[in-house]
Amino acid sequence: MAQYKVPQKELLFVLHDVLGVDRLAELPGLEEATGEIIDGVVDEAAKFVEGEIAPLRESADETGARWEDGEVILPEGMKEAYQRYAESGWVGLASPPEYGGQGLPYVLSKVVEEMLCGANVAFALYPGLTSSCFEAIEAVATDEIKARYLPKLGTGEWSGTMCLTEPQAGSDLAAVKTRATPNDDGSYSLEGMKIFITGGEHQMTDNIIHLVLARLPDAPAGIKGLSTFVVPKFLVNDDGSIGERNKLRCVSIEHKMGIHASSTCTMGFDGAQGWLVGEPNQGIQNMFIMMNLARIMVGFQGLGQCELATQNALAYAGERKQGKTFGGGDTIVDHPDVRRMLLTMRAYTEAGRVMALDTSMHVDIAHRHGDAAEREAAQDYVELMTPLVKAFLTDAAFELGSLAVQVYGGHGFIREHGIEQIIRDSKILALYEGTNGIQAMDLVRRKLQLHGGRLPDRFFERVRTDLDAGGPDWLVAPLREALEAVEATTRTFQDGFREDPNDAAYGCCDFLRAFALVALGHAWLRMVRAADDRGDAGFAEGKQVTAHHFATRLLPHAVTLCRTAALPAGPVMGRSASLLDAA
Amino acid sequence: MAQYKVPQKELLFVLHDVLGVDRLAELPGLEEATGEIIDGVVDEAAKFVEGEIAPLRESADETGARWEDGEVILPEGMKEAYQRYAESGWVGLASPPEYGGQGLPYVLSKVVEEMLCGANVAFALYPGLTSSCFEAIEAVATDEIKARYLPKLGTGEWSGTMCLTEPQAGSDLAAVKTRATPNDDGSYSLEGMKIFITGGEHQMTDNIIHLVLARLPDAPAGIKGLSTFVVPKFLVNDDGSIGERNKLRCVSIEHKMGIHASSTCTMGFDGAQGWLVGEPNQGIQNMFIMMNLARIMVGFQGLGQCELATQNALAYAGERKQGKTFGGGDTIVDHPDVRRMLLTMRAYTEAGRVMALDTSMHVDIAHRHGDAAEREAAQDYVELMTPLVKAFLTDAAFELGSLAVQVYGGHGFIREHGIEQIIRDSKILALYEGTNGIQAMDLVRRKLQLHGGRLPDRFFERVRTDLDAGGPDWLVAPLREALEAVEATTRTFQDGFREDPNDAAYGCCDFLRAFALVALGHAWLRMVRAADDRGDAGFAEGKQVTAHHFATRLLPHAVTLCRTAALPAGPVMGRSASLLDAA
Repeated sequence: MAQYKVPQKELLFVLHDVLGVDRLAELPGLEEATGEIIDGVVDEAAKFVEGEIAPLRESADETGARWEDGEVILPEGMKEAYQRYAESGWVGLASPPEYGGQGLPYVLSKVVEEMLCGANVAFALYPGLTSSCFEAIEAVATDEIKARYLPKLGTGEWSGTMCLTEPQAGSDLAAVKTRATPNDDGSYSLEGMKIFITGGEHQMTDNIIHLVLARLPDAPAGIKGLSTFVVPKFLVNDDGSIGERNKLRCVSIEHKMGIHASSTCTMGFDGAQGWLVGEPNQGIQNMFIMMNLARIMVGFQGLGQCELATQNALAYAGERKQGKTFGGGDTIVDHPDVRRMLLTMRAYTEAGRVMALDTSMHVDIAHRHGDAAEREAAQDYVELMTPLVKAFLTDAAFELGSLAVQVYGGHGFIREHGIEQIIRDSKILALYEGTNGIQAMDLVRRKLQLHGGRLPDRFFERVRTDLDAGGPDWLVAPLREALEAVEATTRTFQDGFREDPNDAAYGCCDFLRAFALVALGHAWLRMVRAADDRGDAGFAEGKQVTAHHFATRLLPHAVTLCRTAALPAGPVMGRSASLLDAA
Repeated sequence: MAQYKVPQKELLFVLHDVLGVDRLAELPGLEEATGEIIDGVVDEAAKFVEGEIAPLRESADETGARWEDGEVILPEGMKEAYQRYAESGWVGLASPPEYGGQGLPYVLSKVVEEMLCGANVAFALYPGLTSSCFEAIEAVATDEIKARYLPKLGTGEWSGTMCLTEPQAGSDLAAVKTRATPNDDGSYSLEGMKIFITGGEHQMTDNIIHLVLARLPDAPAGIKGLSTFVVPKFLVNDDGSIGERNKLRCVSIEHKMGIHASSTCTMGFDGAQGWLVGEPNQGIQNMFIMMNLARIMVGFQGLGQCELATQNALAYAGERKQGKTFGGGDTIVDHPDVRRMLLTMRAYTEAGRVMALDTSMHVDIAHRHGDAAEREAAQDYVELMTPLVKAFLTDAAFELGSLAVQVYGGHGFIREHGIEQIIRDSKILALYEGTNGIQAMDLVRRKLQLHGGRLPDRFFERVRTDLDAGGPDWLVAPLREALEAVEATTRTFQDGFREDPNDAAYGCCDFLRAFALVALGHAWLRMVRAADDRGDAGFAEGKQVTAHHFATRLLPHAVTLCRTAALPAGPVMGRSASLLDAA
């Protein structure tokens, strides 16, 4: 059985020493988020997650969600754990107090998200989607709709979903067919079928609020003809009490590779009553309000799984005896190739945490800072980093799951060790909320181009400033080299995108990885410095060992990736797909 | 549901046009292996595998092997399929005719192995282990033991296993504890517990022959005190008929990530009667006779899964409509990032096939050539390539399984598509028959050093000769660059291994991958040339597109990998493992 222990020391080091999270308390509305409060929340959340959520991970995977005549039965213990989680106030940690939330910083809710996802990523999806649903309604709905749904979503008494995908409309939402027909009372009747709806049906909460993408009768074709509707499982009376069952139904659930405890539902809307949220035909824009934060959230799902893989592999390697090492050590942690795997795991996990939490802290700054220029700069950073956080950390979760199995040897393939589950649970993270290929396209097609290239320029300047401030040469030199390569490729893609978008599109995944390696290198530079300042020699030396491995063995690949990313795609894209037909 | 179609055109292209397999018929004992016979066998095997084996892949995964009171019940259809497979002569395709085999080339048996493993890798393990058991007994047993077991193993009427691993003895067989005590009649009584025994128990064959690693009473401690014993499930009477049940028992089976249809058994030997095979205390050497061929076999398991992933992703991408591409195409094969994934899959699969089949053909030459120098050169090649074939192709199977899921998008995560099964089935391949880290250590510690470095020298010379013969510049230039990097790192590891083995050991996995990329580049050079000579312009152009992608986007990583592999490990290995303790 795998264990999950919240990396509290590491989390507090990143929050306080690396990121200086304490300055958030200077922002309007976050006055209560002092260092002391933050430490207390981390400690409370850690106890809860370790005690109540982590123990369900393997048993819930084994049982899985079951469908029975339109209802979904979740594994034993899930409902009780969810209810205690909601009652303890964790669902609405960063939601406004007027809607039942705690009003604490977004970044702090992501700290808890990481814990929850390390402990049990399938469980984490239920409150995760609820937050996404909350964010979209809060951003665009009328006060009446907000008043009707948000207080219960904010506390987690009700849960939420995002209903976007249809069989013919996955990455391409332009193909959505679900229709919304106006009723006399201002509401709409929804008809259609949605697939892959996470948490579409279950018995954990009294109501489930679906946010549904659908077409109005005279809507234009394609992506500009979609609108957003709030469609509750049970209609909500004017006094807030629960009314009759709405005409929607879970038709089936998917039989999946992993996240077995998460119900992935096919939802049939058969004249279900819904209410327009936001403007007509603005559905995609509305969905992207929550999609961007949802992508950061999925990055944290990846981070949680990275941490789970890393800490278990480390613990196993420190106990497992197998052969003598060259240096005479008798546990496998002293086998060079095992140590290489462990340091790779730590290097990605620890720097990935800095990248993801820094991005999240900038969400707070972008929302709350008193100075518009600061808000803009923070928003630029969030937008640039979102595809990196989502794609890099979810790819890393799958890779680190695989490395953890490799450290365990044949035992890693056996289910009872709970390690192969990391691979199975993580693979979906690279697929949903926009596949990682779509994240890479978002990076090269949108984030590099916005505002005349301001987003990457600001990032490069920030890294260069930190490089100029100094650091160990074994880290500064390769980071500078990688940064220059990424900058040069950025120019190539900025200049060439309109000319032949296939070039950047063919190279975008290589480029995203290179860009992420630079962001991680920057994180390592900051961590090494912060650890030095901390006056804990062992801690600082541990950070240096991992940073050295990263800087010398992993970071140099950024240069090669930039070289391959920037090649013209003509020789492969200029040929007919028929050449690819199997021989 | 995934499909598996044998890539016959490609297989015959590689065998005839690239490798010139027809010259095997000039070797003594292989006179019958003419081109016509080979084509006929490929065609027959393809029909059988597609018709009888592939259809069981997903249903057998779903049901899995079950344990009931010491017996193992396999999924429906497995026994019948196995029996038809054996009756058709496929198990003993390359075994000597005197033991029920067909006496055809080893390389041809590997062609069938690839098919079988593409169709159903869990099924393939049963005849695969039988072949391994056969090979070890044939190599070292007395004529009496050979006569008793080989005829039935050769036809596949009985199956075989390798019983090596124990809970405390996985990668480190020195820790094996199972004991063999002499009986009065020349036999031995075995006592002990073996784990992870593939095919240790099932009802598909009338008898199961276990090859067991155990210690004689006065054996030295460690790796030099192991001997090999043949221990049948049912004792075999002198007339060859089956006698009483031996004292061994399947105590349980494992609940695994994948290969569910393969029974992975814990075997208890409780005074089981066995017979010494080969010399006392030569067990490890005996096991390595079959281990080397078993490692090549596992490489083919990886290759089969690579092909399965590739052909299904290609087919899906050619049908799935999702968004318009920049060039106006409407299936996802025209999305640059999807095409990148597909070409990566083809590049590894097709060149990996050349590497693996070329290695296998050299097994035939090493066994049979009339000229000792030719045999030696062939054996050098086989030994050098074995860790590459095993490690590269099994890592590739997992990677390509993941890429195939990525091409399928969210649908790839759903079990009914049969694609995520590739990831689950493939992960074990990187673990058994020596983890891929152990393969990399075998490469740097043994294969680079043997005979004064003759193995890599001969390989480099061969690649250089082919490079000097010319080819397209976009392939020749990066291959030459990669070759030079691998040669330089080879010298570094040869010179430095004794001084500080940690350096090579820390870099060995990066180095193995770089070395494999050069071997694949060499394969692409040969394929591009052979395709040009074939007079089929579309086929040749298809090969060029894939080769171009490989040479420009994948091969350049070899240079970076060599650079990182050759770094000194002092900064990470010279520190206490306690620095790695989780924060």
